[in-house]
Amino acid sequence: MNAALSAMQWTGHSLRLLDQRRLPDTSEWVELRDAAQVAQAIRDMVVRGAPAIAAAASWGVVLEALRQQAAGQTPTVDSLEPALQLLEHARPTAVNLRWGVKRMRRAAQRASAQGQPLTEALISEAQRISDEDRSINRRIGSHGAALFTRPVRLLTHCNTGSLATVEYGTALGVIRRLHEEGRLLHVYVDETRPYLQGARLTAYELAVEQIPHTLITDSTAGVLMQRGLVDAVVVGADRIAANGDTANKIGTYTLAVLCRYHGVPFYVAAPLSSFDLTTSSGSNIPIEERDEREVTHVLGQRIAPKETRALHLAFDVTPHDLITAIITECGIIHRPNPQSVPSFVQAHAAREEAMP
Amino acid sequence: MNAALSAMQWTGHSLRLLDQRRLPDTSEWVELRDAAQVAQAIRDMVVRGAPAIAAAASWGVVLEALRQQAAGQTPTVDSLEPALQLLEHARPTAVNLRWGVKRMRRAAQRASAQGQPLTEALISEAQRISDEDRSINRRIGSHGAALFTRPVRLLTHCNTGSLATVEYGTALGVIRRLHEEGRLLHVYVDETRPYLQGARLTAYELAVEQIPHTLITDSTAGVLMQRGLVDAVVVGADRIAANGDTANKIGTYTLAVLCRYHGVPFYVAAPLSSFDLTTSSGSNIPIEERDEREVTHVLGQRIAPKETRALHLAFDVTPHDLITAIITECGIIHRPNPQSVPSFVQAHAAREEAMP
Repeated sequence: MNAALSAMQWTGHSLRLLDQRRLPDTSEWVELRDAAQVAQAIRDMVVRGAPAIAAAASWGVVLEALRQQAAGQTPTVDSLEPALQLLEHARPTAVNLRWGVKRMRRAAQRASAQGQPLTEALISEAQRISDEDRSINRRIGSHGAALFTRPVRLLTHCNTGSLATVEYGTALGVIRRLHEEGRLLHVYVDETRPYLQGARLTAYELAVEQIPHTLITDSTAGVLMQRGLVDAVVVGADRIAANGDTANKIGTYTLAVLCRYHGVPFYVAAPLSSFDLTTSSGSNIPIEERDEREVTHVLGQRIAPKETRALHLAFDVTPHDLITAIITECGIIHRPNPQSVPSFVQAHAAREEAMP
Repeated sequence: MNAALSAMQWTGHSLRLLDQRRLPDTSEWVELRDAAQVAQAIRDMVVRGAPAIAAAASWGVVLEALRQQAAGQTPTVDSLEPALQLLEHARPTAVNLRWGVKRMRRAAQRASAQGQPLTEALISEAQRISDEDRSINRRIGSHGAALFTRPVRLLTHCNTGSLATVEYGTALGVIRRLHEEGRLLHVYVDETRPYLQGARLTAYELAVEQIPHTLITDSTAGVLMQRGLVDAVVVGADRIAANGDTANKIGTYTLAVLCRYHGVPFYVAAPLSSFDLTTSSGSNIPIEERDEREVTHVLGQRIAPKETRALHLAFDVTPHDLITAIITECGIIHRPNPQSVPSFVQAHAAREEAMP
């Protein structure tokens, strides 16, 4: 694991984030000193990726506790609540954000109930969230790699690697693991318009680690499958509903339809924190609509006429029946459906502390 | 028809082209004075779109005849041949280019056989090709619009309008006609990476004519169909094989698969000059692979790491069984197949002079 790919650092008094909007050309770190700055950085996609924004938000809660202390106040469950809510609602689709903030809220409540200092408890919990994410991703990578019995050519979408998590990645963790095991032939990387996370971030991670890859436009995936060049598609998730329907980066649904048509397996790789059993199906997942200028402009340059309006849906929903399997840190959910998903999640939630 | 949308002018001694690489921001005309410059402009996509490059190439032949005259030579069928071949091979996929050049070669042969001056005959033929294209597109628009019995929301890909033809357009001609008849509710425009013909050119044409449209990234088409927002997809063609398989801009095949999955009709609009009965099926259509920098760079800015290689297929092939109908100037080929396509084309070829 190349050190250059760590994108989040806790300094003890601030959160440093590698500005993902500037990659791959510029490695610029921004230093965030309060919860509002963290929430803004999540909204502006300085940091993105469902597990990464959960981890960043948890440090945002710590920053709020430190701010109150520095102002001579004693942080309480109530005094932290506005910051918790601000962070929780920074972006609507990824449920990990809500999950991370909820863990921080519970840590505060626990410390409060036990008469312990909240700040120390929050720092421990944020550190635990980050540490767990590293280990979860390696377990996802291991379970995912085991699905493939021979060397494979994979296709992935968006960025689900070290830049989308605390380290290693979810779907990209599976790809890394296969590469480590010498069983990865090639990765095709969707550029992932409009934000180009594939071209800018995934290609960057793969280039740094010299994993063999080819960048393609999003509309090239179809012809690669038609030509038999893709053995499986592996993507991440921003929220998985109780029935297995999965919200992920716009374009994921199209890949799933292409996989169905071509008989190519379609895998979702995500931690249990991406499951939301309180959302019954994909149609209830809120889909973020972002500024149309992220479509009409590329790297600051306008590509469309001034008069033209654009639609920028940041995510789409893939129905569970198009998903071959969901790869989690606790194992595989084959053919996810309204029965298997809740029972798998609940069974493992009983054993895992890190659950919603 | 707004005069601003004419992108090709014959001055009597040169061919003026609106540089499509600079649109929509800059309306810069380039003036081409010989066949080599025309071939280069086609290769570099100063002019693009199957019917447009056929028309441009025909004027390229005229420029060669004029150049020979100016040099004191008398153009002959043989002396023109190197320029004919240069133009014919400027790009490999669109068969219209070959068709246009073939018409010019035959015009030269005819004039030669009749002892008439070649240059005048070539000017007449090039003018005829342009004039016919205008009329063909209006007939395509009329036949295509008649397919829809009520107001529709369409989705289109790439640019098939006035900028891709001599005037009016093929798929965009159908859209224009529906708009003229007051039966077009909305058009969704795929931005069409990597060259952004949708964002830069189609949106520009629609904005100029105030046709209601929304720009989307290519990977958004799937979710729009999932939400029931698309009544039909209409695209153009660069080459239609004898069995109905259709080569068109990369991404077209994915749209056809999405249409099949969602039960949305998928229409191809193209003149008879886009049919190539000598190519038996799509697998025999040469697919142009262009410079990877057209993927790794957008508007001159690099979007991917230096180490990352990209694949740039300019076209893909949609098998005939995914095509609901092909809209031509002579009528509709419903459910195109290896029997219906050749018989339709041959029947109309007997009546149309303008045939390969």
